Amino acid sequence: MGPGPGNPYPEVAQAFARPMLGHLDPAFVALLDETCERLRTVFRTTNPLTLPISGTGSAGMEAAFVNVVEPGSPVVVGVNGVFGQRMCDVAARCGAEVVPVEVPWGQPVPAARLLEAHPSPAVIAVVHAETSTGVRTDVEELARDKGDALLLVDCVTSLGGIPFEADAWGVDIAYSGTQKCLGVPPGLAPLTVSERARERIVPVPRSWYLDLNMIGRYTGPATGTRTYHHTAPISMVAALHAGLGAVLDEGLEASWARHEACGEQLRTGLQALGFELFAAPGHRLPQLTTVWLPEGLDDATTRATLLERYGIEVGGGLGEFAGRVWRVGCMGHTARPRNVVSLLGALAEVLGR
Amino acid sequence: MGPGPGNPYPEVAQAFARPMLGHLDPAFVALLDETCERLRTVFRTTNPLTLPISGTGSAGMEAAFVNVVEPGSPVVVGVNGVFGQRMCDVAARCGAEVVPVEVPWGQPVPAARLLEAHPSPAVIAVVHAETSTGVRTDVEELARDKGDALLLVDCVTSLGGIPFEADAWGVDIAYSGTQKCLGVPPGLAPLTVSERARERIVPVPRSWYLDLNMIGRYTGPATGTRTYHHTAPISMVAALHAGLGAVLDEGLEASWARHEACGEQLRTGLQALGFELFAAPGHRLPQLTTVWLPEGLDDATTRATLLERYGIEVGGGLGEFAGRVWRVGCMGHTARPRNVVSLLGALAEVLGR
Repeated sequence: MGPGPGNPYPEVAQAFARPMLGHLDPAFVALLDETCERLRTVFRTTNPLTLPISGTGSAGMEAAFVNVVEPGSPVVVGVNGVFGQRMCDVAARCGAEVVPVEVPWGQPVPAARLLEAHPSPAVIAVVHAETSTGVRTDVEELARDKGDALLLVDCVTSLGGIPFEADAWGVDIAYSGTQKCLGVPPGLAPLTVSERARERIVPVPRSWYLDLNMIGRYTGPATGTRTYHHTAPISMVAALHAGLGAVLDEGLEASWARHEACGEQLRTGLQALGFELFAAPGHRLPQLTTVWLPEGLDDATTRATLLERYGIEVGGGLGEFAGRVWRVGCMGHTARPRNVVSLLGALAEVLGR
Repeated sequence: MGPGPGNPYPEVAQAFARPMLGHLDPAFVALLDETCERLRTVFRTTNPLTLPISGTGSAGMEAAFVNVVEPGSPVVVGVNGVFGQRMCDVAARCGAEVVPVEVPWGQPVPAARLLEAHPSPAVIAVVHAETSTGVRTDVEELARDKGDALLLVDCVTSLGGIPFEADAWGVDIAYSGTQKCLGVPPGLAPLTVSERARERIVPVPRSWYLDLNMIGRYTGPATGTRTYHHTAPISMVAALHAGLGAVLDEGLEASWARHEACGEQLRTGLQALGFELFAAPGHRLPQLTTVWLPEGLDDATTRATLLERYGIEVGGGLGEFAGRVWRVGCMGHTARPRNVVSLLGALAEVLGR
């Protein structure tokens, strides 16, 4: 119950146990195609260029920037936590002119501030669900008024847990991770790129490994010849395929509702135990609840007790909130009432309530 | 029995089935430390900066270059196949002045040609075992005479299958893949960096995801605080840990000997069936045998028959050798006499011998 990874769906372990396929085996290629199609369903998109990047969520972030940012490109980034900061670092290494829009941690980034930050940005980038603070930043308004800019959205912690609508909202590039609300171990970064953004992919991105023109010739073509780029991480793709299967068997809306219900249960229970909610009201993520520790509760020893005695992991605060804030995840297969009850019961015992 | 992935060791499937750990869980950190120590053993090194990069072998290649190459750095690259070509592309995207040393496919790259290619290269890069041709290029002489240059070696297909000695040979940076002779699915890139190379890591590499200064603060410190960089691919690290355990339980020298014996058996058997060996004598990889197809044998239909009827995958030739050459792997857990016998028996039946 940390900020991810959560527990994988049981179907994932079964997928890992299957015999190895080659990355050019027709059976694997079919599995990869189906995985991309399932990703389109969870991203709510018809973008042809939708695929798992062969690295963790941060590789997805780097792929998102390195393919469309050229030296000198103005890039506006909303910064209300660690992952907004990371976007600035990644964009700067691509040579971007980074225009950060800083907001206090725990608050969402107002669309107006992003829209007025630069007269003609190439990219406006924002984190939909900040894993460091448990805050949701809404992106619909950004998408509506972005003008010629590409809208780039980090939905590592949001995808599968709360509504995200790539096409309906007008998102150009979105990436996620597998280990949050998709219920799969970390190791891949689902990515989707609109046709509008695809046309702006630079001819030779600084990264060979993350070059979407080349990767797309392996994963992408609906018809025609596939061209080998790099050896796909076969087992992780099979795991993602299985995890997405579990999500879609349940139904995406049902998954959102389950996360919402667990978040509500957790917020109520933690407040009853003396924890105060950290994130701004109206923008709290159900899949990641952030709380101020009650007076007198020691962060490190309590988290160690939870882990060792009860087998429950919760996450500590980051940056200036280390030692003062917890991040409690309820994501993917972990988002079950029984897990919330276990945590609340364990905490009540530890706190002597 | 393609050029990788091979079949994983059975211990790997067991590792995948274990419960998920968090990337900061003390139990995972201990597993990661032990994985890095096992990598030191197979690389034959004491380099502190030895770790699995969170991507496939090509991510290891990119990490190797992007951390030590600055715009304008002269980089000499031996090119005798696809992976030498890829090195040139990767180095060029880092801004290097690339000096390719071209050699016909199927031949090793002579050390003298690499050493005389540039008066003061920053990096001399070579592929130890070319996966596209089945050829071994020796690196000891390069290491001895490299002068001030860093020696960067691709050992994706060599590590665990034939002798490789990072420290004794004087290799500065080496990377590998998990899916070849280490008997693990693809998804991680073992990497080792000498202290001499570590001192030359550029302050801000173009890649955030592959920044070894930052990654080393998470995986690296023998003592002191670990700093989170990106979420480690937990399950793949557990799989690598298990695969390396299988290799080291058998013994590295025993693994080399097993690969050597299977390669010999395969070369003899394939020649008896009318295949001619492709790679230069004295430089043939036992773990990857390349052969010219006999007159009249159709590449695509024969490989499809092997896969569908016998469950055996072999790899086709690349580039100008597509349709004319096969690449037959015998790597990791696949390198067993019974697999060689199965392939030779299947081929004899298909060929009507």
